[in-house]
Order: sequence, then C-alpha cells, then structure tokens
Amino acid sequence: MAIATLLTDFGTADYYVAAVKGVLLSRAPKARLVDVSHEVEPGNLGQATFLLEAAAPCFPPGTVHLAVVDPGVGSSRRMLAVAAGGQAFIAPDNGLLTPWLEAAQVHAIDRPDLHWSFPEGSSPGRSSAGQTFHGRDRFAPAAAFLLAGGRADELGPSVDDAVVSPSPQPRRDGAVLRGRVRHVDRFGNLVTDIPARWLDGPLEEARIGDHLARRQVRCYAELPTGEAGVLVGSLGTLELSLDGESLARAWAVTSGAEVRVTLR
Amino acid sequence: MAIATLLTDFGTADYYVAAVKGVLLSRAPKARLVDVSHEVEPGNLGQATFLLEAAAPCFPPGTVHLAVVDPGVGSSRRMLAVAAGGQAFIAPDNGLLTPWLEAAQVHAIDRPDLHWSFPEGSSPGRSSAGQTFHGRDRFAPAAAFLLAGGRADELGPSVDDAVVSPSPQPRRDGAVLRGRVRHVDRFGNLVTDIPARWLDGPLEEARIGDHLARRQVRCYAELPTGEAGVLVGSLGTLELSLDGESLARAWAVTSGAEVRVTLR
Amino acid sequence: MAIATLLTDFGTADYYVAAVKGVLLSRAPKARLVDVSHEVEPGNLGQATFLLEAAAPCFPPGTVHLAVVDPGVGSSRRMLAVAAGGQAFIAPDNGLLTPWLEAAQVHAIDRPDLHWSFPEGSSPGRSSAGQTFHGRDRFAPAAAFLLAGGRADELGPSVDDAVVSPSPQPRRDGAVLRGRVRHVDRFGNLVTDIPARWLDGPLEEARIGDHLARRQVRCYAELPTGEAGVLVGSLGTLELSLDGESLARAWAVTSGAEVRVTLR
Repeated sequence: MAIATLLTDFGTADYYVAAVKGVLLSRAPKARLVDVSHEVEPGNLGQATFLLEAAAPCFPPGTVHLAVVDPGVGSSRRMLAVAAGGQAFIAPDNGLLTPWLEAAQVHAIDRPDLHWSFPEGSSPGRSSAGQTFHGRDRFAPAAAFLLAGGRADELGPSVDDAVVSPSPQPRRDGAVLRGRVRHVDRFGNLVTDIPARWLDGPLEEARIGDHLARRQVRCYAELPTGEAGVLVGSLGTLELSLDGESLARAWAVTSGAEVRVTLR
Repeated sequence: MAIATLLTDFGTADYYVAAVKGVLLSRAPKARLVDVSHEVEPGNLGQATFLLEAAAPCFPPGTVHLAVVDPGVGSSRRMLAVAAGGQAFIAPDNGLLTPWLEAAQVHAIDRPDLHWSFPEGSSPGRSSAGQTFHGRDRFAPAAAFLLAGGRADELGPSVDDAVVSPSPQPRRDGAVLRGRVRHVDRFGNLVTDIPARWLDGPLEEARIGDHLARRQVRCYAELPTGEAGVLVGSLGTLELSLDGESLARAWAVTSGAEVRVTLR
Repeated sequence: MAIATLLTDFGTADYYVAAVKGVLLSRAPKARLVDVSHEVEPGNLGQATFLLEAAAPCFPPGTVHLAVVDPGVGSSRRMLAVAAGGQAFIAPDNGLLTPWLEAAQVHAIDRPDLHWSFPEGSSPGRSSAGQTFHGRDRFAPAAAFLLAGGRADELGPSVDDAVVSPSPQPRRDGAVLRGRVRHVDRFGNLVTDIPARWLDGPLEEARIGDHLARRQVRCYAELPTGEAGVLVGSLGTLELSLDGESLARAWAVTSGAEVRVTLR
C-alpha cells in the first residue's frame, strides 16, 4: 500500500494529471495517490522544490514523490530517481531535487523497457505520441516501478553530477537576520527561510523594502487588525502576516523578496 | 477502510492539504480520503457549514469529516470531535459544526500525546513549527485516531457549551415564504434555504431585491432562454436559476441575499 | 479494486463532486477514484469528449469512466452505459460518448431501484431532492453498480440510436493537411486533430488565420524564444507551441480554430 505523491505544473483543467495517475495505477494497482499540488507556476522549479520540501516529511517511509515540472521535457536532460531518508523522489534532473541530493543515492533513470505507450488499437493516430509528455510516458512508469517494490538502483546508473540549484542561504550577523520570502501562501502570508530559532531575543523589527513589522505574535489571531506581525510559521521559519487579509497584497511583496529581521 | 472527507479554506496551490493527508495516512494507512472542497473563502464558516451539511449525508456510516476553517488557529479556541448520526466530525469550536451539535456527543479534543511534529532529522530548523498549522499538527492526528478505530470520547472531555452560529431560519406566513440565498454554485444557481415542500401551491413569484422569477420548472432545461425560474434543488430546497448562464451574475446576487416567494 | 474516473463541469468549489464520490463509495466501497477534471466549461460537451478520449487509454481494463456534463439534467434525455474496449463509460445521452459508440455495447440506463436519495432522518426538508443532480442520484449509482461487479446490460435495454456529435474530421489533400484546434492546454499549446503521421515530409508552414509557424521541432525546449513551432504532441497529433509562453494568447486562438499545414 505504498503512497505516491504528485507535484506538477499541469493544472487541473487538462487530462494530464489523470493520464499520469492512470499509468501509475495500471502498473502499481495498490498505490495510494495524493496530490501535493498541480498549480505550480509553469516551469517554476523553486516553487516546486519549496512545496515538496514542506510536504514530504508528513508522509511515511516508503512514499514515492513524483515531481514533474519539466521545461526541458523531450530534450536530453536526464531523469532522476533519488532515495533519501527512507522515501524516493522521481523528477527531471533540473535542480528541483536539490535539497535531497546530498544525503542520497542518486540514479539516472534509463529503462526504455518501462516506457508507456498507447495500447494497441486505442487510436490509430496515436502509434507515436511524441516527446512532450514524459510525465505519462517515462516518469509515471519509473514511479510505478518503485511503488511495485523496485529499487532506485534498478532504474539506472548512479550519478554524482546531478544539477544543483544554488539558492541564497539565510544568514545571521549578530542581531541582524537576513533571508528572503520563500513562498506566498493562499492567505497572503509571507513564509521566509529564516530559522525561527534565530529569533532568540525580543524583536526590534522585520523589514521588507520600506515596510516594517514590529510585533511578534504566536498566532494570526493575536494580530491587531491591520497591523503586520512576525510569527513562527508551520515550517519552523519566520513568517510575516496580517490578520484577515493578504500581507503580500498590502505590501506588494512576491516570492524572492529580501527580508531583514533585527533583534533588540 | 474508513473514509475521511476534507474541507478547508487552504486552496489547492499550497502544500497544506497534502501535509494534512500525509499525517492522516501516516497514522491511519487504510483510510480513504475524499476532498469536499478546499476553496472555501478564507475564514468563511457559513460556507463551510453549508458544504459539509450538503455532502455529509452522501457518505456511509463511519465516515470522519475533517473541516478546518480556522481563523483562530493557535489561539485558545477549542477543537471539537462530534459523533452524530453514525459519522464523526472534527473541527475548530467556532460554530462550523452548529448543525450537528444538538443530537450529538460533543467532545473537546485534548490529546497532546497525539500531536504531530516534524520527524527527527527532517530539517534542523523545524524542531519547533509554531502554532499556525493545527490542521496538520492537531486536527489530522485526531481524525486519524478515529479512522484507526478510536472513539470520540477518548479524544477529550464531553462539553455542552460548544460555540453555536445562530443563522436566520426560513419562515412561512401563509402564502409568503421568506428565506435567503445559502449558496451560489459554479453555474450561478441561487440555492435558498426555503424547504421545497412549502411550495405546495402554484407559484406567484420569487423575488430577490427588485428581481422577479415567475416560472416554476422541474429542471434547468425547461427554462426558456433568458428567463429566470424556480425549481426544487438538489438539497430539497428552492433554487433560482437561469438556463445556460449565471443568474447570480445577471441579478448581481451573492450569498445571504433575502428571498421572498409568494404562492398564488 | 476497480477504478472509477470522474469528469464533470461541476468545478471544485462546490460540494457536487464530493456528493458523487460519497455515493460511489457507499455503494462500491473498494472503488479507487481518480479525477480527470471538474473544470470542463459548463455544458461544453466537446471539451469533455476530448479530455475523456485522451485520458481513458491510460487506465487499465475494468475502469469505469463517469462523465457528467449534462445541460439537459432532469429532462427526458436518456442516460447511457457503454462497454467499449474492456472499459465502461457512463454519461448522459448527449453526444459526449460519440467516440465510443461505434464499437460498443450501448445501454440506456433504466434502474429506478438503484436511485440514490437522502437517508431517512438526514434532514426533513430533503425528502424530495428535485431533478437537478442526476450525477449524485442516478449516474453515481449506475457507475457503482458496475464497479461492484454488475454488467452494462443489466442497467437497461440495448439502444442503437444514441445521440452522436458529428465533428469535422481532419483531411489531407496531397501536401495540404487541414484540421482544427481541439484543445488549448494550460501552457497555451494548441493541440490539433491532424494525425502526426501525415507530416511525412518536411514542413513548409502551419497556418492559423494570419499566423504562421515554419519550424518543426521534437520538443518545446528546441524552440527558439519567441518563435512558434510544430511538434508531435502527446496524443499523436500535431501541436503548435511557443517556448515558455502561451501561443494561444500570443495568437489569440481558441479551441475550434482551423489549422492548415503545408508540406514542402
């Protein structure tokens, strides 16, 4: 009863997600399928990495995470199967899996025998279905192989030169903490990459551009109406928020913005 | 093989729903998960109650309904486990569960031993993940406890002062039926709270503000193009509709609008 | 462990999809449910047919596809159960199932004994829930009947006059291929109905209105920035695309547009 999670930029209006799930269940009939999100902005690898890094620890060992955000689909970019921390990750070799590469077994997927194609007689025009949908034709079969009990090292050779997406790291200089907005959520909360444990004294201020938050609270409900505040978010990092409305909109902040937090 | 339904205002672009599902399946691996909706407007408790009340009767006994619309997350508001009609409901104590409180066992959830936290070593900064995501950290574990065979009375003490959301009730004065629009659906149909059985004679008119519908039909297809009509909706209440386009848009009506129906 | 896929125009904000799933799981507790899409434009049968035709071949034999795009709900239009290619299809008799009618057993569903209604005591006003939600009340029970092992011929009499949606077919005149845009996907790719195998010589041009594409590529990544190209799409038909942005937006093209491809 292994679990597969799915993370893509396919949206939910097309047939793409269903096609991937159909192949998964054809090859691994007992797999449990859970959507992480299919609303990653087209090609936004950083957003995909963020979402997967946030969701993966909630799943049990043995889970296979299939992440297909793949602007290079059909080109010669590799496909990776990564085993890390008791879970497996399948994704293009485009940096999406950066956080898992270090402490992991990393394999380049090379199993043409597993490729999916339209069954005989399903539609004559479909004998050759192009190079544009590796999610269905190659990634789903690889994930199903793992879900059905296969090992990552059976999917292809070990590689040590997987593509890494360097990302600026948060840093601490005495009373000044610097980082950036990693994610803007549905509520307009600004999730930063600054570890909450660095806020080990009273807050002086948190600054994004010309905007300031001076109040530290434990939860959204403690915020006075209309006043921005800083709190420990659900990933153990600092989060900036406005009660009952979107701080991202109020401050016109998007993902990637620099954040500077000062302790008193 | 118990079923859990999920109803939230988390949206589907974030990792929040997946995190809740990961915890549910980690603790209750055989649970079947069904989304009711994750597009409740942020903090709209009335909308959440409406959707849950409409969907719950379609599910079998033993189903656990997890509803997390929780503007007070992290504050001292309680969390409830309610057993009613052979099903269970887990939600914040904020009025969302009002329709189930009367004929039910109601318990305040108090089981810190069940709380979820990031597994050891999943990410150093995450040792303490704040008070902002009780859906993952507290509600999902409580629902999983029930899904795995636990009883509501094992989750915490019985309470008799749960928060009730008073809502205006439809009323009948002879030939005049008064109620309101409970819901505007995707098609722009106006779902009212007026019981269809009250329409026990020929319709004179249904009025919302200055707008009138004079025709009663059995189904949308019987409506002449461009003419609004009244029909018995899928919840056994009166519904106002326009064939092939949105009546809500045509009449500029939103949820909560007063409806007055007159019999001939 | 039969699979049911769901395709509707219900959207995902309402309770409609959950109600259908609740009835399915009440009647066929072991069924696996997979969403194809619920974002079909209200009443758009051609779009529904396209999505189902694209997704169905990815699912294993025994799968039951439930497609409810049903502007005539509640009227006397029939409901169909179609057995084709080892899979079953349940939908209104409105043309949606056209591609499967020819090589199939086609039955009109007529099993009032299977109809769903609100359980006793679930809500007094709901004793009679109208004629507006056959997805929940009639289609889901029919699909559940098949999922639980029933046969299509047990659902009602065989019919040979099911509604057919005639659609213009692509055609080839020597070096000129004519077809149309069947679908615009999330990325703005234009999926045509022209079989890719017809492109058996070098491309001269592909034309939609006044817009021209002159480059043939194997995958999106091979397209020079800002230049439209032609490639073999994931359904084995020709597709027009622009790298990294929406060709549909750039060319202001919607589904149904005529496409003319010329070979050199």
